[in-house]
Amino acid sequence: MSLTSASPKAAAEEAKSASHILATLPTAARNDALTAIHAALSEARDDILAANARDLEAAQRAAENGQLSQSLVSRLDLGRKGKWEDMLKGILDVRELEDPVGKITLRTKLDDGLELTRVTCPIGVLLIIFEARPEVIANIASLAIKSGNAAILKGGKESTESFVAISKVISAALEKSQVPNNAIQLVTTRDVIPQLLDLDQYIDLVIPRGSNELVRYIKTNTKIPVLGHADGLCSIFLEQSADPKMAAEVIVDSKTSYPAACNSLETLLVQQSALESHLPSVADALIAKGVVLRCDKVTKEILASKLSPELSSKLESAMDADFDTEFLSLILAVKAVANIDEAIAHINIHGSKHTDAILTSSSDLAEKFMSSVDAAGVYWNASTRFADGMRCGFGTEVGISTNKIHSRGPVGLEGLMIYKYKIRGQGHVTAVYGEGEGKKSFNHERLPL
Amino acid sequence: MSLTSASPKAAAEEAKSASHILATLPTAARNDALTAIHAALSEARDDILAANARDLEAAQRAAENGQLSQSLVSRLDLGRKGKWEDMLKGILDVRELEDPVGKITLRTKLDDGLELTRVTCPIGVLLIIFEARPEVIANIASLAIKSGNAAILKGGKESTESFVAISKVISAALEKSQVPNNAIQLVTTRDVIPQLLDLDQYIDLVIPRGSNELVRYIKTNTKIPVLGHADGLCSIFLEQSADPKMAAEVIVDSKTSYPAACNSLETLLVQQSALESHLPSVADALIAKGVVLRCDKVTKEILASKLSPELSSKLESAMDADFDTEFLSLILAVKAVANIDEAIAHINIHGSKHTDAILTSSSDLAEKFMSSVDAAGVYWNASTRFADGMRCGFGTEVGISTNKIHSRGPVGLEGLMIYKYKIRGQGHVTAVYGEGEGKKSFNHERLPL
Repeated sequence: MSLTSASPKAAAEEAKSASHILATLPTAARNDALTAIHAALSEARDDILAANARDLEAAQRAAENGQLSQSLVSRLDLGRKGKWEDMLKGILDVRELEDPVGKITLRTKLDDGLELTRVTCPIGVLLIIFEARPEVIANIASLAIKSGNAAILKGGKESTESFVAISKVISAALEKSQVPNNAIQLVTTRDVIPQLLDLDQYIDLVIPRGSNELVRYIKTNTKIPVLGHADGLCSIFLEQSADPKMAAEVIVDSKTSYPAACNSLETLLVQQSALESHLPSVADALIAKGVVLRCDKVTKEILASKLSPELSSKLESAMDADFDTEFLSLILAVKAVANIDEAIAHINIHGSKHTDAILTSSSDLAEKFMSSVDAAGVYWNASTRFADGMRCGFGTEVGISTNKIHSRGPVGLEGLMIYKYKIRGQGHVTAVYGEGEGKKSFNHERLPL
Repeated sequence: MSLTSASPKAAAEEAKSASHILATLPTAARNDALTAIHAALSEARDDILAANARDLEAAQRAAENGQLSQSLVSRLDLGRKGKWEDMLKGILDVRELEDPVGKITLRTKLDDGLELTRVTCPIGVLLIIFEARPEVIANIASLAIKSGNAAILKGGKESTESFVAISKVISAALEKSQVPNNAIQLVTTRDVIPQLLDLDQYIDLVIPRGSNELVRYIKTNTKIPVLGHADGLCSIFLEQSADPKMAAEVIVDSKTSYPAACNSLETLLVQQSALESHLPSVADALIAKGVVLRCDKVTKEILASKLSPELSSKLESAMDADFDTEFLSLILAVKAVANIDEAIAHINIHGSKHTDAILTSSSDLAEKFMSSVDAAGVYWNASTRFADGMRCGFGTEVGISTNKIHSRGPVGLEGLMIYKYKIRGQGHVTAVYGEGEGKKSFNHERLPL
């Protein structure tokens, strides 16, 4: 890893050329580099935490002057209980994952002595743009090395001292490994993001990890493919046959277990015929957890007639915009729909293609919902918060993608891979194949992997 | 299929909403629509060929005035021997392909009663921008319907009469099928391309089929992902241990079997130590086929000393720019390199990541080349012209992609698919899982597909 003071262009050029070496390293060489990084970071704990303390102190001052949010300050803190250990453990976890490079996914015999193979390979150079959390640098460096991709990292300026300290240690560790030092570069100079986003000849994929604003800015300002999501506007459709107790539990978990997460619930659609039977107990449970309900006219009237005057007084009226809003807080938009078709249509128009769920006891309706809703995750009787790489068993997560191509939903190492086609022949030419007289035809026999 | 005079925005909005219906249709409904299209086109042969004749006549006049190239005029002609029959056969070929929708590619037991499934599904709305060839419309409509994607087609204005005639027939055929008419839309109004490229809220993928200029224009002018390639700058590295006769055959096939194709050879790199032993016979064979060799200093000197004065006089001197040029004609840039490393470095800098080959009898060198060269296709002792969906056994081809994400190389139906994650639970919530006391842990058992 080099802490580059070079221009963004030079950094990207070096990363590209390092990526060509990294892509050919065997599994062991990439794993050994992770072992070396882990050991070097363990040893440098005190220095890094001291650098982090300086970042923290500056941030604390900025927060007191109202220039930074307190939540950002707390995300900066590498000394917080368990954070340092988690960061180190993450490196070893990534090392233990199956090697995603060089997997054969297709083999076809084209003709005698002529074989086609499709083999997974790294994408090339990743640009990862993230905000405050300094532990992300170790996490991303591990994922990049494991997957054989070079990476350019650009972190938030609040963590500069921590980043520099970590990157010096990683750099020294890589020096002793076969991974080229330039394969992982940290860019700290200010205002380089627009220049980096312009380098589509060197950079193959941008992964933004940060606020919706950051992601939206990046998507609008680059020709390089972007993996991620700007919005997580997740909806649940509560169908009349759902078990009311189960419904309340899933909705409460989806909304309240971590309201700031992208996989949290933002819109609840309730079938007209379930308004009296199901909605009041759901609303009760939500309000008890501190959720503010923004209800459309129909749902507000029903709730007002069923809830105690004290609870009723807490209901708010929804405006149209509430059904297009990712609140990321304890606010929930609530709306009545006539049936499943209306629910599906609402979600396909207002949702963000992240994760949506149906609560129902009918498997037919569940299957209909899951095939009709256009989203990365479509769940039946389960919390939207299962949309997470760790929970889904992907080992680790690069992010959650709402893209319609390449990688969708929680993205693990697989999302950092592409493939190439290899053909091994014995001097085969194409001109001899065809339909006419004396022409050969292809064999196209699928071979075992 | 509707021949829309609506605004591009309205067309895209309708296509999006049709895509949600199309995505849920069973295999039989999509196949039946293809059968109906095939029958209707067969029946309307005379009308369509008459419309095509009018396009052809106008194009012929334009060609005579020097406003159109003769090769474009010939690509317009649907009446040319075999073309109509091929177009119709293509529809049935696509119908017979395995259904790419709804394939389960991952199943994981997350916990008792909680299962994750990854299922292939259509991408959504495709925008296909193509130039003259009128048969593409039937081809693309078939691929879109088979893969469950809606498509907006924008063809070159030279084929307007043919397009309108074909699209009316397809439209009438779809009326009798379950595929919504708006799923396939033909946009004929002029100058709509910039507006279409701006509709990233409705259109999920752009597939340009046409000249490098068209592709480059599209890539620079849209936020929507683009599948395809602008350049096909294919190289061959001729290593010293290659069989000279085999080398000449493969190089001649790569360069001359269809020089205008993107998978044709443009740069020949010859190992220094093979210049005397291999290059003269290769050059002989190429010149016999009418190829003009643009040689660097070293290769030109060797050839001048080995070839007859008559052949020598045909050699040209290469300039630097020739090694970055996709000639698409019978011109080949030739350069000496010291060894395989220099060849790989040259290709990784000057190539277009399309298809590159090594000719060698050493499997070690071949494997090194194939893992180190960063291209969609890396071939050993085989012509670059095998880079083709039909030849590779993909059934049909949407195009050849040099993208580093999603789909690379010859793209078949698979490239028009993405996946969604379905979770089927029984009221599962996330808050109960974790590391602390009394928390549950995940099962994460991989289940058979």
